[in-house]
Amino acid sequence: MAFNYPNGQSFDNRSFKQPRVSQGGSQSNRGMSLEADINAANNYYLATGQAVIHKKPTPIQIVNVSYPARSAAKITEAYFRQASTTDYNGIYKGYYIDFDAKETTHKRSFPLNNIHDHQVEHLKSIVTQHGLAFMIIRFSVLKETYVVWADLIFQYWDNKETGRKSIPYEVVVKSGELIAQGINPTTPYLTAVDKLLERREQKGDNLV
Amino acid sequence: MAFNYPNGQSFDNRSFKQPRVSQGGSQSNRGMSLEADINAANNYYLATGQAVIHKKPTPIQIVNVSYPARSAAKITEAYFRQASTTDYNGIYKGYYIDFDAKETTHKRSFPLNNIHDHQVEHLKSIVTQHGLAFMIIRFSVLKETYVVWADLIFQYWDNKETGRKSIPYEVVVKSGELIAQGINPTTPYLTAVDKLLERREQKGDNLV
Repeated sequence: MAFNYPNGQSFDNRSFKQPRVSQGGSQSNRGMSLEADINAANNYYLATGQAVIHKKPTPIQIVNVSYPARSAAKITEAYFRQASTTDYNGIYKGYYIDFDAKETTHKRSFPLNNIHDHQVEHLKSIVTQHGLAFMIIRFSVLKETYVVWADLIFQYWDNKETGRKSIPYEVVVKSGELIAQGINPTTPYLTAVDKLLERREQKGDNLV
Repeated sequence: MAFNYPNGQSFDNRSFKQPRVSQGGSQSNRGMSLEADINAANNYYLATGQAVIHKKPTPIQIVNVSYPARSAAKITEAYFRQASTTDYNGIYKGYYIDFDAKETTHKRSFPLNNIHDHQVEHLKSIVTQHGLAFMIIRFSVLKETYVVWADLIFQYWDNKETGRKSIPYEVVVKSGELIAQGINPTTPYLTAVDKLLERREQKGDNLV
């Protein structure tokens, strides 16, 4: 059964995110198609036994539930809640992995206001626990998607009060790994993670 | 804001689980208080930097959302969905860990109908990926809570068509580790996981 928004856009509850009040237009999250790509990649990785990675359900605060006779419990009042973690986690090659995926229409930089405090705090706790923490960043106009270590995000995030409020495109390109466009899956992001791991091993650092 | 069920029982949406049609009374899930204990333990482990483990939100299928002017989006029709994973995962000592928590009122055994197919399948995929997969089992009448490796569950699960439909209490006691009752947290289950890991190292197997 398909549901549409009043504007005719289709409503896909599998990848539904809380609509946000625009904070100036182009900076707001537009993760719909990137999310679909990552979910497809995760299904592929699961089916082929390469990794077990799932998107967490959107947290919902349930206020009222009705229990109609002979049919499923129906939630009649509920609200979106703020998540306390990132959207994705799982296991790959024995590593705990944890990440979020962000899309921007900017071409010259990735604005930090795509990211929320709780996501950074969560990723920092994952790094402390020796998990693999990263971010998938899509420059949608450029049609380029990168994986960057969360450490790169922290560098800019921790200096954003006094420094710049975005990560330059060139830094993402240099520090991150481009996800090569694939057929199935279209966005084989673990291949890019593999390359980042190789670089980390070779150079002994987390960022470049 | 507190909400109660018609029977006066308080409704805690943080630990809400889809009510199930009873399948014969005492076998059905009664995870409420165990869930609260585990969530409290997870908060403690997070605050003390020992582990990052979260309960996944209950998956909800959203059908209708209204957007009242000047207030939060309100979900007016939604249904509970079947999860495809277990309830808990995270990272501890660099390990990916993944588990479910089950409570039974039985005293002599843990009935396998507390478990669902998708949970077993998910835990098997985690073992394949070299994660730590386990189950927390509470015998609520006995007031005893154990951690057992998922491998023990598989042994019985894979033979339940021809063999017995429950795991004997004595087997849980012998193969698992009792979670010692604590003060803060009340249910320090990672201590029991540590003991299981020690036994695995010493004896070189996963079960006993």
